[in-house]
Amino acid sequence: MSAPSPISADTRAALLMARCDELARCTEVPGELTRTYASGALRDATALVAGWMAEAGMTTRTDVVGNLVGRYEADPAIAQPRTFLIGGHLDSVRNAGRYDGPLGVLTGIAFVQRLHAEGRRLPFAIEVIGFADEEGVRFHTSYLGSGTVAGTLAPESLAYTDPDGTTLADAMRAFGLDPDRLDEGRRDPGDLLGFVEVHIEQGPVLERQDLPVGVVTGIAGASRASIVFTGMAGHAGTVPMALRRDALAAAAEFVLAVERIANEVEHLVGTVGQVSVLPGASNVIPGRVELTLDVRHQSAVIREAAVGRMRDVLAELSARRRVEAEWIDVQGYPTVECDLDLMSRLIDAIADEGLEPLRLPSGAGHDAVPLSTITPVSMLFVRCKDGVSHNPAESIEAGDVAVAIRVLDRFINGIAVAVATSFQLED
Amino acid sequence: MSAPSPISADTRAALLMARCDELARCTEVPGELTRTYASGALRDATALVAGWMAEAGMTTRTDVVGNLVGRYEADPAIAQPRTFLIGGHLDSVRNAGRYDGPLGVLTGIAFVQRLHAEGRRLPFAIEVIGFADEEGVRFHTSYLGSGTVAGTLAPESLAYTDPDGTTLADAMRAFGLDPDRLDEGRRDPGDLLGFVEVHIEQGPVLERQDLPVGVVTGIAGASRASIVFTGMAGHAGTVPMALRRDALAAAAEFVLAVERIANEVEHLVGTVGQVSVLPGASNVIPGRVELTLDVRHQSAVIREAAVGRMRDVLAELSARRRVEAEWIDVQGYPTVECDLDLMSRLIDAIADEGLEPLRLPSGAGHDAVPLSTITPVSMLFVRCKDGVSHNPAESIEAGDVAVAIRVLDRFINGIAVAVATSFQLED
Repeated sequence: MSAPSPISADTRAALLMARCDELARCTEVPGELTRTYASGALRDATALVAGWMAEAGMTTRTDVVGNLVGRYEADPAIAQPRTFLIGGHLDSVRNAGRYDGPLGVLTGIAFVQRLHAEGRRLPFAIEVIGFADEEGVRFHTSYLGSGTVAGTLAPESLAYTDPDGTTLADAMRAFGLDPDRLDEGRRDPGDLLGFVEVHIEQGPVLERQDLPVGVVTGIAGASRASIVFTGMAGHAGTVPMALRRDALAAAAEFVLAVERIANEVEHLVGTVGQVSVLPGASNVIPGRVELTLDVRHQSAVIREAAVGRMRDVLAELSARRRVEAEWIDVQGYPTVECDLDLMSRLIDAIADEGLEPLRLPSGAGHDAVPLSTITPVSMLFVRCKDGVSHNPAESIEAGDVAVAIRVLDRFINGIAVAVATSFQLED
Repeated sequence: MSAPSPISADTRAALLMARCDELARCTEVPGELTRTYASGALRDATALVAGWMAEAGMTTRTDVVGNLVGRYEADPAIAQPRTFLIGGHLDSVRNAGRYDGPLGVLTGIAFVQRLHAEGRRLPFAIEVIGFADEEGVRFHTSYLGSGTVAGTLAPESLAYTDPDGTTLADAMRAFGLDPDRLDEGRRDPGDLLGFVEVHIEQGPVLERQDLPVGVVTGIAGASRASIVFTGMAGHAGTVPMALRRDALAAAAEFVLAVERIANEVEHLVGTVGQVSVLPGASNVIPGRVELTLDVRHQSAVIREAAVGRMRDVLAELSARRRVEAEWIDVQGYPTVECDLDLMSRLIDAIADEGLEPLRLPSGAGHDAVPLSTITPVSMLFVRCKDGVSHNPAESIEAGDVAVAIRVLDRFINGIAVAVATSFQLED
């Protein structure tokens, strides 16, 4: 009996691209893609993806928080098989692109689709998870879906409200979920082998390097602050330059200092993203400026040293300009390292495709952050056009997706060989 | 028969300060001073001031736009006497101080009060005008009151609407005025001798020089622009510094260039007062920044040269940063020079008080701007605390007001002597 011919990665990639288009039509805002937690659009998306999972031979369920879980069982010859997780998220930001999130789920399905077509089982189960909320748009929860799986979700999150004043607990009930059972969503770490997510890069590095995919080394930690500059408002026509205490000029000097320091430190990024200038009239010298600072680097030591230099510059310019500057620390998050063994397997898989296995940090947070507390995590980045994400212009190439699928095939099959060998050794 | 003893400037200043307090209670917003055009608060203020004018021996009327005009007739022996105008405005900005505007009206009344107490007439009439709208808060009209007197008001102003959608024409009707008769408000230049306004400095120069008053040389012209920076929004964690096109960093560099160029040119002021940063999220690189530029100097040549340098800097940084910068000229206004003869009379009056007659430009616009098209104009600045204006913290000293009243006495009496002499010469 000859094995069924494998489904080519190109065919699966083409199907995946069409599915991303179809999934993008599940939206709560007509004319754009917006899909927040516990919305009708998320329910539609979950049903659609569950159908694709079933087609690929998986049993499906939704867990206590609404995550969609498709399971492809292990080789029945294996006693107490463990589970390898492949995932992404099904929620989106407002006016989103169609790949950030779904790509991780649909590459997981693409992988299982081939196993199923070939009638093949691995020495572990595969679970493909579509997390119900990663972006946290509606309730400002971070990693609501994967945090439930990891058991890291703060219990007070249930009291968070959306812009309409609905609590997360009530939204869950309205969605048919039981918020009192949220802690039952935590997975047993002993059951898990690891986690991989295929995700768009959301940056321009792969494009610049002319590479379709890259291996994520870790998720950079972020230091955050909000800074309030208080000078002296005054009439734009009557206060001489030498007597001004212009809060905006002080803030502008700080913005450039952040840029300069970030430029000087490799892989460091520093961003002032939000600025408000008061009183905000064209003929009034700004008396107050509030801005946000976001600084990221994989190394906490390097990141904190850079933030320290920014604080020093701020103190100096504040004194020189007689503009008060208040630094308010805002909760950031620590760096999460990807698992070295899984990383080296991804590197090998990419090299086996004849490609340079570029390693790069992720500046954005991902579901791997909470999951890293219960299982080894890894991520594969796919090149995206102009580094654009969180935007309808988000764009990837089917050819790159095919590469990602081939790398995922090699990666998980490699783990299967290793697991099988260890069983043989153990047996 | 001995002349009645003159009312001392100190007594009149004390009364003026008390009247400023009383006038500040005419407000449309309880708990703060806000008095916009054609409001009930303006009606109350007009009635209050009309009463004070009548007490000082003036006949009063309101003109076609609602300006309050108090007239103190000339010496009846003079055939066809001309008129000298003293004025200020009775409207205010939102949450205003109590001196910006009323000081000009009340020093005019204080001057006439003494003439009246002494039973004295001048060889010209004095009219004290309380302009009904200088700040233009409600309809964004510039100099509605004095522009009507000067005949410079644009006819299309009548169609301007307030935030409730009421047109200026309708607001005038509701206030008992006839918008169709607005052009009847224009004064015959041949009837006028000149105009003086006593006004708070709205800047810190007199305070720094330890002087109670100063002579205004002119009202600085302003160049205005609105500038739109378009870079590329992106994820704060994923786009490396070297690949960013951060609209905010470009704008910050421009803000500092405006400050630097203004610092380099004597008496030039440059202000960026309004800034909006989009999309405006702490974790997104700004893709678009809009800001306003306001540059003032009495010399149009110097002002335009400075603006030219700012445009050059903008072009250079825009190209270097690959951030598009669009410069949109916004209507500014030309410099208005104060009348040299009136200026030198004010200088003499100050010197006769034993004070240094400091000359300084006005960076803010005043009713003298339109009035300069029909009569010679002059202004006397009074020191204000910390240079603060357009703010409830606006503050002046009664002693400084007394100096202003004495200077005004000397100034107008000096003109009276000159006019009387010229009559004698002519006769």
